Amino acid sequence: MPANPAWVKALKPSGPQGSELLAQERNRSQLPVESVSEFLFSKEHLESKRRILKILQEDPVFDKTPDYYAGRAERFERALARAKRLRQLKVKHSWTQDELYLANGLISDSGAYLLHDGMFTVTIREQGTPEQHEKFLRPAERYEYIGCYAQTELGHGSNVRGLETVAEWQPDEKCFILHSPHLTASKWWIGNLGLVANYAVLMAQLVIRGKSYGPHPFVVQIRDLKTHEPLENVHIGDIGPKFGFNSMDNGFLLFNKVKIPHISMLARFSRVDPETNEYVRPPSASLVYGTMTLVRASIVKAAGHALARGVTIATRYSAVRRQFVDKDAPEWETAETPVLNYRMVEIRLLTNLAATFALHFTGKTMMQLYQRQHDSMNKNPGNPELSGNLLADLHATSCGLKALASSIAAEGLETCRRACGGHGYSNFSGIGPFYTEYLQNTTVEGDNYLLTQQVARYLLKSAEAVLKGAPATNDTTTILKQYLSRQGQGAAFDVLNNDADIVSAYAWRASFLTFEALKQRQEQKMGWNDMLVDFYRLSKAHSQYLVVKSFYSTLEDPETVDKLDRSTLDVFRSLFRLYALHTMEQEGTDFFAASACNLQQLTLARTKSVMSLLKEIRPHVIRLVDAWDFPDYQLDSSLGRYDGRVYEDLFVRASERNPLNNLTIDPYPFSPTLIRVDKSQSKL
Amino acid sequence: MPANPAWVKALKPSGPQGSELLAQERNRSQLPVESVSEFLFSKEHLESKRRILKILQEDPVFDKTPDYYAGRAERFERALARAKRLRQLKVKHSWTQDELYLANGLISDSGAYLLHDGMFTVTIREQGTPEQHEKFLRPAERYEYIGCYAQTELGHGSNVRGLETVAEWQPDEKCFILHSPHLTASKWWIGNLGLVANYAVLMAQLVIRGKSYGPHPFVVQIRDLKTHEPLENVHIGDIGPKFGFNSMDNGFLLFNKVKIPHISMLARFSRVDPETNEYVRPPSASLVYGTMTLVRASIVKAAGHALARGVTIATRYSAVRRQFVDKDAPEWETAETPVLNYRMVEIRLLTNLAATFALHFTGKTMMQLYQRQHDSMNKNPGNPELSGNLLADLHATSCGLKALASSIAAEGLETCRRACGGHGYSNFSGIGPFYTEYLQNTTVEGDNYLLTQQVARYLLKSAEAVLKGAPATNDTTTILKQYLSRQGQGAAFDVLNNDADIVSAYAWRASFLTFEALKQRQEQKMGWNDMLVDFYRLSKAHSQYLVVKSFYSTLEDPETVDKLDRSTLDVFRSLFRLYALHTMEQEGTDFFAASACNLQQLTLARTKSVMSLLKEIRPHVIRLVDAWDFPDYQLDSSLGRYDGRVYEDLFVRASERNPLNNLTIDPYPFSPTLIRVDKSQSKL
Repeated sequence: MPANPAWVKALKPSGPQGSELLAQERNRSQLPVESVSEFLFSKEHLESKRRILKILQEDPVFDKTPDYYAGRAERFERALARAKRLRQLKVKHSWTQDELYLANGLISDSGAYLLHDGMFTVTIREQGTPEQHEKFLRPAERYEYIGCYAQTELGHGSNVRGLETVAEWQPDEKCFILHSPHLTASKWWIGNLGLVANYAVLMAQLVIRGKSYGPHPFVVQIRDLKTHEPLENVHIGDIGPKFGFNSMDNGFLLFNKVKIPHISMLARFSRVDPETNEYVRPPSASLVYGTMTLVRASIVKAAGHALARGVTIATRYSAVRRQFVDKDAPEWETAETPVLNYRMVEIRLLTNLAATFALHFTGKTMMQLYQRQHDSMNKNPGNPELSGNLLADLHATSCGLKALASSIAAEGLETCRRACGGHGYSNFSGIGPFYTEYLQNTTVEGDNYLLTQQVARYLLKSAEAVLKGAPATNDTTTILKQYLSRQGQGAAFDVLNNDADIVSAYAWRASFLTFEALKQRQEQKMGWNDMLVDFYRLSKAHSQYLVVKSFYSTLEDPETVDKLDRSTLDVFRSLFRLYALHTMEQEGTDFFAASACNLQQLTLARTKSVMSLLKEIRPHVIRLVDAWDFPDYQLDSSLGRYDGRVYEDLFVRASERNPLNNLTIDPYPFSPTLIRVDKSQSKL
Repeated sequence: MPANPAWVKALKPSGPQGSELLAQERNRSQLPVESVSEFLFSKEHLESKRRILKILQEDPVFDKTPDYYAGRAERFERALARAKRLRQLKVKHSWTQDELYLANGLISDSGAYLLHDGMFTVTIREQGTPEQHEKFLRPAERYEYIGCYAQTELGHGSNVRGLETVAEWQPDEKCFILHSPHLTASKWWIGNLGLVANYAVLMAQLVIRGKSYGPHPFVVQIRDLKTHEPLENVHIGDIGPKFGFNSMDNGFLLFNKVKIPHISMLARFSRVDPETNEYVRPPSASLVYGTMTLVRASIVKAAGHALARGVTIATRYSAVRRQFVDKDAPEWETAETPVLNYRMVEIRLLTNLAATFALHFTGKTMMQLYQRQHDSMNKNPGNPELSGNLLADLHATSCGLKALASSIAAEGLETCRRACGGHGYSNFSGIGPFYTEYLQNTTVEGDNYLLTQQVARYLLKSAEAVLKGAPATNDTTTILKQYLSRQGQGAAFDVLNNDADIVSAYAWRASFLTFEALKQRQEQKMGWNDMLVDFYRLSKAHSQYLVVKSFYSTLEDPETVDKLDRSTLDVFRSLFRLYALHTMEQEGTDFFAASACNLQQLTLARTKSVMSLLKEIRPHVIRLVDAWDFPDYQLDSSLGRYDGRVYEDLFVRASERNPLNNLTIDPYPFSPTLIRVDKSQSKL
């Protein structure tokens, strides 16, 4: 479009300027931003990030300027170019895999090799034999084979056992025949399949002599390595535009009786003996268990980070955006108030700010637990039952936490977007586009509603064991036993004045709901289906307990006390209380029905505690979001700029960079007198 | 892309087919779909719709096939072409304005003349003098002037008094000078301004001899009528990509000391006398009041319709989509269950289905009330105080209801999207793209959070009057008085068995919260800001009461009883109870704290009533969504197809129509051996 005229360029936003307001905010608090960042991420991580950021910003491939305007094909191609360049930079700068992911996070593109690195090579490494490593993994590590992970089908997602794609063993020819018997057997949603991958790890029903042995993994070539065209009798394509993730080529895949050799079936755990044509069973399923737990724990931690992005943007913008004069202000007051001062904005943003830390600490705790568990299992393989018990606990809790955390983050991001008012609807806010990408987390790695059944099943089983007198072997059985032992006396938690009591109240309510559900299932013989709504509620209650407990324990941890100064720790304690009491109030009926607290406490939590916590935390909020350490490059947001130059940025993006402004159109419905001019293509 | 090979074309989804499952569902119920549709919309409306649909579907301009794949410029141009064609069709078929809107709704494009028809001409008509009608309205009606409504600025939205654009009266030259003193004065978000409009109704601060008289409307030419280029010292453009509404050219607009004549200021209500250079005040502000009320009432009604779109899609798809075998099924059972049979899906979809009717009836009630009010005011101008009182009630309640209804619809649409699992994330679901368009309703015509203050202010004022012994003059004061009179005795509502008691419990809780808030403000001298969270809660409670009451009253209305047969009416009564009891349970703490019901009732509502209502309604759900009468053309959804051919439709959209599949790319990061081929452009 024509450049902005001089008189427009001379304009400034009306004062006070955003930069002044953010500077004032930062001056209101002494919170040591850098040491909080180090506490959250470690010094090494921050240094890596800054080093990598510099490299990215110097490379035109990573310029984000055109991103928000681009159509789908352009976005895909841009993401592909970036993914390639990142692999080149990784070699050049000897980045670790973690540093590559860090770079990817700064770019925030889904990436053309995301599934290759994250699922294809990982699956072959974990489930392949040494011979298969040689044949498939080495070329994959050299990016000669570029893979995807093809499990979900058009007609089947969560119910993996119901997959329709068949791999039938041919005893005579010693090979498998892959086939898609129905349209619903088409692989669907497979990341990086649509245009990028030439190989796939394929989950298919293993059939030997007419008998099905359930889904197993196969490594299959799907495109020609030179022409990149699909192989014969293999039909592949991209599945079309999505709510988010549009730079990713999620794809479909169908086979028409395609032969693959014996070596294609990943055979570390189970295999077909080519001599006897017999199926050889896997020793145990617990290893796969473990990987899923780790993936879910990382979703929990990532949820905190994702939500923090929205909170950073909305909080900074709310400090800059001014609206109305306070109703109770003296009459001579005419200056408008930054909206962040309104209690209705505070309660939305500060509770979500508290949630970012709650989720971050919970994810961290989960990952440490997993690591400890994993190590002790490797050290003491002699006691598989005990380890199994702890692992099962970790597995179940990770299911519930994944569901809760990704729901909190998704809803929180939308809350942040709306808290930005009208400008939250602009893509330049940076929240909307990111929110649509994030939303897939509520469905992948286990649908958030389905997962809660696994948690409930585990809790009921634990409660049954406890009732039968089993000893407490993990946290779940411990709180259930504690509840039972005090049930007669009732609870008397001082939730308004004692942080440990808050945690106990959450444990009490989760235990109460567990035993209630058990009673309904066992005594009243209620059907599984009829209990799903209560199971959802139960899983949520138990996961909320885990979050509150992790938050509390992190602040009590001597390591934390060592890293944060006293007043910073006080701010975090206020954030803990805000998160815990606000959530308690939201779930009031439950807590009250469980006698975990009384009506007076609930009312006071809402009207007094939460309100004064908002005021305590308020001066520190800009520094707290600063501590999340998002570079402007990563946020790519007009509203969330570190320097507060919100309006200047919105204006430049709209006026100077917006390709729609190259058009002049004929506006008249009846008398088409004008030509359509595209100034980007012609000189008219 | 290459056509699907013959072996793919021969594939069918695995059975049972979606069409069979939907047929079974429709056979399970006798609900008379057509008469329910007529009850909701009237026979005439349905006939118009079908007639217009036929015209649209025969015209290639309205073919939606390419829409989901198109980039922003293409979408805008397509919408412009459709808007033009619609105006031509309107003339050809002598459509009324309502029929034009109906056509627009079927297309579901935002439309290039939306603001011209909806705001520009309307404002001139209502606020212009006969002379101004002659000068501006006539050419606008002929689409020679194409207008927009320029109020919101980069730095000001809700606080209209804070607008920065200035129109300064020049006593010597008898003209106004328009000027944008700051960057934040730029008009922003103005629909149809970015590329389409050549005129604007502009809200600007009227200044006479240095004194400001607040914002007033001016009619201003902004683009040349022949070249369509911006006029000198007028800077215009599109503001860039948004979360939704991307076929709309929301724009920005700045003025650099632009002179406009005296006639430009719309002068029906207030004006500048060009002889004396004095400001002439408007007689009363209540007329504007009225229009806003009507707009909000229509948002309430539209919320039901919008939500019904998502519910229709998700419900039909959930009847087709099968997942897992019921846990309690006998062991020999291997057929997977349609997910609609799972209680966790039912509770999400059926409560939202109930909400669609609740909102529809509430919107209808509001509009009737407004109409009755309007008529009686015109008939009895002698009693302005009484009318004013009722109008103020209607105004306040419309604020709260707009906020509640658009929130319910927005959240409900996202619930429906997620209830579709993975495929809900595909744009072909039809929910995601529509949801992003819908979301703007939570912010426009008053931000949903801000609006609640107006409701609270009104309720506090009413409570104060009632305490001072004022008579009950409208519904609000009536319920407040009833509460006061029974407060001593307490409430004893039989919410589980008596529908009228449910309504009373909602009234009781809203009244309780009103008097609580008044006490805090008056006795405890709580600051306005510190009460905002409680005000939000209060407004929500009052609006929920209104929704429940409207739903109940509609079903008690003799006209309804006349139109619906007995068993259909029973289904609607179940829907009423489901909506009211589920919401009550969600807001349990409030109801309990207000003693509007007891803990036992709340628990039973959740575990018994809601569960059995789900079972009662379940057989009728497909027919109930059918009654909303969305043509497939309007839904544009693979998942929501009337015939249940979900998977076939997804596959065709992905494989045959998806332009991304014209690309072949070079996938290798290190050895670029391949060319990029775009098959749509070359024959390679």
